[in-house]
Amino acid sequence: MSLLEHELREQPVALARLLERQGEHADKLAALLRRRDVRYLLIASRGSSSNAARYAQYLLGRASRVPVAFATPSLYTLYEQPPRLDGALVVGISQSGESPDVKAVVDEARRQGRPTIALTNMPGSPLALAAEAVLPLEAGDERSVAATKTYLNSLGAIALLFAASTRDKQARRELELIPAQVEAQLEQSLLDVANADRYRSIAGGTVVGRGINYGSAFEIALKIRELSGLLFEAWSAADLMHGPVAAIAPGWPVIAVAPRGPALESMQAVIDGLAARGAHLFVIGEAEDAALRLVPNVPEWLSPLVTVIPGQLVALRLAELRGGDVDHPHGLQKVTLTR
Amino acid sequence: MSLLEHELREQPVALARLLERQGEHADKLAALLRRRDVRYLLIASRGSSSNAARYAQYLLGRASRVPVAFATPSLYTLYEQPPRLDGALVVGISQSGESPDVKAVVDEARRQGRPTIALTNMPGSPLALAAEAVLPLEAGDERSVAATKTYLNSLGAIALLFAASTRDKQARRELELIPAQVEAQLEQSLLDVANADRYRSIAGGTVVGRGINYGSAFEIALKIRELSGLLFEAWSAADLMHGPVAAIAPGWPVIAVAPRGPALESMQAVIDGLAARGAHLFVIGEAEDAALRLVPNVPEWLSPLVTVIPGQLVALRLAELRGGDVDHPHGLQKVTLTR
Repeated sequence: MSLLEHELREQPVALARLLERQGEHADKLAALLRRRDVRYLLIASRGSSSNAARYAQYLLGRASRVPVAFATPSLYTLYEQPPRLDGALVVGISQSGESPDVKAVVDEARRQGRPTIALTNMPGSPLALAAEAVLPLEAGDERSVAATKTYLNSLGAIALLFAASTRDKQARRELELIPAQVEAQLEQSLLDVANADRYRSIAGGTVVGRGINYGSAFEIALKIRELSGLLFEAWSAADLMHGPVAAIAPGWPVIAVAPRGPALESMQAVIDGLAARGAHLFVIGEAEDAALRLVPNVPEWLSPLVTVIPGQLVALRLAELRGGDVDHPHGLQKVTLTR
Repeated sequence: MSLLEHELREQPVALARLLERQGEHADKLAALLRRRDVRYLLIASRGSSSNAARYAQYLLGRASRVPVAFATPSLYTLYEQPPRLDGALVVGISQSGESPDVKAVVDEARRQGRPTIALTNMPGSPLALAAEAVLPLEAGDERSVAATKTYLNSLGAIALLFAASTRDKQARRELELIPAQVEAQLEQSLLDVANADRYRSIAGGTVVGRGINYGSAFEIALKIRELSGLLFEAWSAADLMHGPVAAIAPGWPVIAVAPRGPALESMQAVIDGLAARGAHLFVIGEAEDAALRLVPNVPEWLSPLVTVIPGQLVALRLAELRGGDVDHPHGLQKVTLTR
């Protein structure tokens, strides 16, 4: 078994460890999110962590009822014109904690006396040392280049902060159930992914999502792309129909992330529109006829923790069919030091 | 000549009209940007306007020295959980002014008593009526589905707000020179684009940019995609090297937006890395050996107004070679009413 598959299957255990070890600590960090002078959140991240940041944009935005912005690191580094950050709570997300541009944003926030939280799997990393507070991801050692359990635990850490900052006891109970649901999702998706074998000769594909699963679409596309080298891309369902849909030709594979929830009706309209253009659809959903079925009873706010699982397994299967080294994809490194 | 080509060639005149008619008005609007209670900007947009918003993220961020966030319209519409907006200045960008989700964000800001500015080509549109202040784009009637002159004038409007809010006289003088530089760029790129004829059989491509030209990469990819139906995508040069580069196979076309400026060194490193992977590079730059040459002496902060021109012409040429109707691309509409 590849390192990647091993780590992918370890996700329920890693997630349970995070919830057990960091639940109380998250309650303390939540005080930062509730500070009355916090008028917006500013997240700095790169790669898979930026897909987790899209989850935070919806979830922490709903928790604190403030907008969530993404930092433009080059304003801090290349252009040397960092903004005034009064009103900001800055969150840096980096699995390795090594990314210099993520750290540059956190450093600037501290210089300006603003509260900062690092989400990282490496509590001794430069990012963790730079931030005022750290929420360790507790994912354990991740050795394959492509992130799986560190991504899932980033989502878990964001969900913990949501439950803690809203002091919502039902949310905390729902969160406690999620490792078992991720385990059940792995079992379901391992069965479903056999269907992917028919698609060994595709050239690429598109993943669409909306709302809280916008980031899931990006993470699934990234994972397939990293592991298989196939040209996958992600779009918000709303933006896709604005023009980019012009390149969706008959037969082109489209994975639609469509769990139950407020975004489902609008996702269904996009699915119908894409089907009418002749796209080859793979729906990640709860319906019996979904190609990649979701386990039932996962609350919508936690759905990104299960919707990514079938995507990870499709990525792994497509890579195996194409004969690549899934642990060391061509030309990629685990840590990228962009400034 | 197609409507699209006519409108594309009209851009220098449309831009000059904007600067002449709206210069003084922009000075008045700039007072909103300088309000002391503005701690961040929040931009709502869709489609091409979101690519103009990426320019605003860098330029207005530098002008006001505050972070610029993008709104998540579905929190206002689908999820009905709009954030608190104290500290925000809200900017809605919509060429038609018809987009209900852009208007929903502006409506919410007004309910909360926050300042709002609409950038739209339609001063009588629902968005313009909803906002406290309007900066008309003055692009004239745009009839082809794909935006060209409304996009360029959106950039022009953002540049006007920058020059006005910083009260920078040199910036204003540099801005006055830009219509003539766009005209010269059109002439240069009309010559260069003949080289695109060799590429009629490509399946797709990637556009990369960084910093202030991050949005230019997205707009060029969108334009090629809308007009030709080819699968073009855009990446920040920093994010691409983090993993998505795995799908860049030998011979794959990559357009690199690389004008002079603080981002050039990091862009050059990415160009070299892509060349080492065997990608087929088309550089938009000032160097003599650039495939798509930029006219000289355009200041970096205004470079997105010229870098998009060769991209628009490549899009038009590829569409013509493939025999599509460039004025009415398959399945697209001028106004998309996403909620």
